[in-house]
Amino acid sequence: MASLGQNLYKADLREFAFVLFEQFRLGEILGAAPYESWAEDDVRMVLSECYKFVCEVIGPLNRSGDEEGCHMEGGRAITPKGFKEAFDKLYEAGWKSLGVGHEYDGQGAPRAVTLVAEEMLSGANPAFNMYPGLCVGVGELLETFGTPEQKELYLPRLYKGQWGGTMCLTEPQAGSDVGAARTKATRNADGSYNIEGTKIFITGGDHDITPTIIHLVLARVEGAPAGTKGLSLFIVPSVRVNADGSLGEPNDVVLGGLEHKMGIKGSTTCVLNFGENGGCKGYVVGGVENAGMAQMFKMMNTARIAVGIQGLATASAAYLNALVYARERKQGPSIKKFKDPTAPKVPILEHADVRRMLLDMKARVEGIRALAVKLAMHQDLAQIHAGKDDALAAEHNGQVEILTPMLKAYASDQGFRVCENAIQTLGGAGYISDYGMEQYCRDAKIFSIYEGTNHIQAMDLVSRKLALRGGADLKKFLGDVGTFAKRNAEHPVLGGAAQQLALAQKAVGGAVAAMMGWTQEGKIELVPLYANRFLEMMAETTVGWLLLEAASIAHDRLGALGRQHPDAAFYQGKISSAVYFALNVLPAVAGRAQIMSGGDDAALTIPDAGFAAI
Amino acid sequence: MASLGQNLYKADLREFAFVLFEQFRLGEILGAAPYESWAEDDVRMVLSECYKFVCEVIGPLNRSGDEEGCHMEGGRAITPKGFKEAFDKLYEAGWKSLGVGHEYDGQGAPRAVTLVAEEMLSGANPAFNMYPGLCVGVGELLETFGTPEQKELYLPRLYKGQWGGTMCLTEPQAGSDVGAARTKATRNADGSYNIEGTKIFITGGDHDITPTIIHLVLARVEGAPAGTKGLSLFIVPSVRVNADGSLGEPNDVVLGGLEHKMGIKGSTTCVLNFGENGGCKGYVVGGVENAGMAQMFKMMNTARIAVGIQGLATASAAYLNALVYARERKQGPSIKKFKDPTAPKVPILEHADVRRMLLDMKARVEGIRALAVKLAMHQDLAQIHAGKDDALAAEHNGQVEILTPMLKAYASDQGFRVCENAIQTLGGAGYISDYGMEQYCRDAKIFSIYEGTNHIQAMDLVSRKLALRGGADLKKFLGDVGTFAKRNAEHPVLGGAAQQLALAQKAVGGAVAAMMGWTQEGKIELVPLYANRFLEMMAETTVGWLLLEAASIAHDRLGALGRQHPDAAFYQGKISSAVYFALNVLPAVAGRAQIMSGGDDAALTIPDAGFAAI
Repeated sequence: MASLGQNLYKADLREFAFVLFEQFRLGEILGAAPYESWAEDDVRMVLSECYKFVCEVIGPLNRSGDEEGCHMEGGRAITPKGFKEAFDKLYEAGWKSLGVGHEYDGQGAPRAVTLVAEEMLSGANPAFNMYPGLCVGVGELLETFGTPEQKELYLPRLYKGQWGGTMCLTEPQAGSDVGAARTKATRNADGSYNIEGTKIFITGGDHDITPTIIHLVLARVEGAPAGTKGLSLFIVPSVRVNADGSLGEPNDVVLGGLEHKMGIKGSTTCVLNFGENGGCKGYVVGGVENAGMAQMFKMMNTARIAVGIQGLATASAAYLNALVYARERKQGPSIKKFKDPTAPKVPILEHADVRRMLLDMKARVEGIRALAVKLAMHQDLAQIHAGKDDALAAEHNGQVEILTPMLKAYASDQGFRVCENAIQTLGGAGYISDYGMEQYCRDAKIFSIYEGTNHIQAMDLVSRKLALRGGADLKKFLGDVGTFAKRNAEHPVLGGAAQQLALAQKAVGGAVAAMMGWTQEGKIELVPLYANRFLEMMAETTVGWLLLEAASIAHDRLGALGRQHPDAAFYQGKISSAVYFALNVLPAVAGRAQIMSGGDDAALTIPDAGFAAI
Repeated sequence: MASLGQNLYKADLREFAFVLFEQFRLGEILGAAPYESWAEDDVRMVLSECYKFVCEVIGPLNRSGDEEGCHMEGGRAITPKGFKEAFDKLYEAGWKSLGVGHEYDGQGAPRAVTLVAEEMLSGANPAFNMYPGLCVGVGELLETFGTPEQKELYLPRLYKGQWGGTMCLTEPQAGSDVGAARTKATRNADGSYNIEGTKIFITGGDHDITPTIIHLVLARVEGAPAGTKGLSLFIVPSVRVNADGSLGEPNDVVLGGLEHKMGIKGSTTCVLNFGENGGCKGYVVGGVENAGMAQMFKMMNTARIAVGIQGLATASAAYLNALVYARERKQGPSIKKFKDPTAPKVPILEHADVRRMLLDMKARVEGIRALAVKLAMHQDLAQIHAGKDDALAAEHNGQVEILTPMLKAYASDQGFRVCENAIQTLGGAGYISDYGMEQYCRDAKIFSIYEGTNHIQAMDLVSRKLALRGGADLKKFLGDVGTFAKRNAEHPVLGGAAQQLALAQKAVGGAVAAMMGWTQEGKIELVPLYANRFLEMMAETTVGWLLLEAASIAHDRLGALGRQHPDAAFYQGKISSAVYFALNVLPAVAGRAQIMSGGDDAALTIPDAGFAAI
């Protein structure tokens, strides 16, 4: 059994294998184009080796990175001890090129596999994993939108971690309101642009890990339209790069300061001043102006999924550590002997309230993981069918669109909640730094904020995603859930749970109708007021569905293998997660639909001065 | 209007006056024994002067105390810069003797007044306020249980902050299971005891603020029974005190270490080794052995209320700061102009989701404050009626018993939730240290853990408090709520909300019946499994009730004063809080009762090995 130690990170490889192969039948797409080079054994080996790597190399830097944090020296950002070396080892080992295409020396793994590996990389050290994560993100954006020359120059180096990357959206006066960006771009005769402006909250905006950093900067070319439509995206290296890939002069990108944060302290969060001295050159992505927002969304969607994985990863690590603690820590007698002061002390895992917290954490972690892998499988299937059956590919892409804001928002909100419960499971030990739970909780709080706050996710879901393709994607989603619930309503073990799922599915449909009604009745302000609640309802329905799907598979396997099989407890645990979630969490979905139907608007009608007399 | 600044602390004096005088009619008990020296103007002056004091003296040390933290020097704990001076000023100003009796040079204020002052002291600097808080706590315990000599020696000095205090319960092997304590006491010929053992997580266990610290140590006299029944409580000064109050030799209490924590970093959390060198003397409280647990409960009940106030105070400070930020920060256009990129930017207070978060915070903060003041008023009324109408006094004490675990657990859980929402309201600015929201959140996490975890509070409520006096206190409580709900069911503005309250009240009654059924059917393990949920249901019903009570008063005042009155917005805000809570939070109370009636036991039946395959 696992134990607490210097590297706290823990993963359950049996669970990964279940989700990938038993629940989502990854095996069926391995061996087929574009995944012809992959077999089931390769995936299993990748996962176990990646787990070994993160435990040995980056996990041990998680707490030390938090304690040391980042600092400035001579105007440059310095990362915690060991980060640079771990970064190099990461690229040597190839874990960041899993999902990169063969044409760039990557391994072309399915998204579902990359996602699980990313869960381990993030879970072992969320602050560290953002540096390489941004290299991939910038690379993928340029692979999609860059000119051939841009691809040739930047991609190989980004994908190999030779150059760093960032996305520079936020400005002091423009946070969630990206369209208010004021950073200016001025055309030069040679086709380059002069960039001038200040960006804040830039993750990895400066560091000592790579010799240059490829910033992707949203800026407005003089004369461009106001708002997001007039934004262009620029490639702005911190140190200029020559056409042959060698490095030139510094590019007048000045580190204005590092933020002190609640968590992810090993990750630099920077104020960047571009062109303070008039010497900052940028290159417009794809050679096209005013396409910046659409281009950035490519990276942002990937980043939103990545944030969902961060939430999942942190929550899973916190859960498994709390579980290990609960097995080892003896405290108090069994409740059956609570009147006997001489009764033996039992592991706190035996106490009902500890079991409740652990099962709650387990169900949320597994359900969110299933949601994430489901999303990745849709990406893979879209990839497989692209160019062969475009309608089917579009259907899969539609599900990706719907699941992305749910994954980002629900995994980040609930990830934080799981970390909070992990602290509570440990009691006083959870609040002190020694056991690492409080760091998970501090790290996790940012996930609901960056890459679009969770309200932005909720608005993306209700005002954009639900209406995509005339509502076909939503209809498909609700149909899949409804069909499953109906088929299992009389299931001998899961029947009651499936009936709760049916009620939740119906409630989500009702809530959609309520929101459409508001829009038609001119009560449009009720939509943002209830959007977060709606997203949560829909995400919980999804999680309940996928947990039940897993449970029904586990039930069948249990029946086939028998209760003496070594996997029996694992399968039983899957059933417990699903039943717990369906009977304890899903009923509130219908409850919230009921609340929504009332359309209370107290938050809108309260006078501004009524919030407080200060 | 208030603004962000070096001292972040903010309080709403209008709200304090409303709760004390309009909702709970404090005026009716002022002037009567034992509060004959108090008039309404005195209370108002105390509150405004106390607010001034905390803003000037201890509020500015909140962030610096967090950043500097505590450290060890030469085996002693050193508190952050300024703490010692602020402590002295606090006692000069008299804010810690508000509730102390006249016989000890205190001001004999009603508990309700002390409570509001404590909210300000805690809210301005929760870490700092624990040092003086413990002086009062130890003093009150000795005032109740000490021998005349003990009172004479210790009380004046504790109440004046000349000596510090602690409560020493937890041991490495005995956290929540206090009865497993191993610290030993051996009788000496002179009536003193030799103390030997290790205590952990001792708040204020060492510091540089007072020259001696009066530890109250739970220990077992040799030969005493096992469990809590064999525990005695000892007075153990860190530096010995002579009969005349002068200080003698060190008492062999050695600081073993300081914990590094998520928050409350300005407060020392100590490992203490008693009698490592055989030289630690203690004196049994009241001269009675084996009464330690009952004695400690006196202090613990006060401490639990104090923790509830900490949760309230931190949440209130976070809320008011988030509100000020939302008024000042401009971001994005009004939703009514969301398609116009040239539309003017509006304060984020105008955005629906920000209003939702703020009103949610406001309702919880005000509701918990009402619960706390209600509890204090019951204490005051019990005090007033004691010896005159003992049945009435007992009735008030019964309500104190019921409300205490609800205040401690609900205020701490929801206080954390409010701080989380305060971070989210600020977005990225909430996650960085500059705005203080992340510190509130870190500080607040301990409240659900110390002074009895929230599960211990829930078990105290369901297994002890509900059954007190044959269930009479519960009956009185439910009767009060039910009567109010019934009386207001047809209220022109609050009728729908009152109907939700009636449903919640009924649901709480049903949940009590369900738990009694489990006990009778031998399903006793379901009680701890659902205890936390039950406490939350009952606390939300209480909060909903008291918010509606406030709203009905506000509604009447609005009617009398008219909407042009300067207080009109304030009163309207009270109505909004109550309606929001009743329509958005209370419906889930009945939902949870429904869940409880199902009695799902997945968390109990999941095999231990089913939690994970690690």
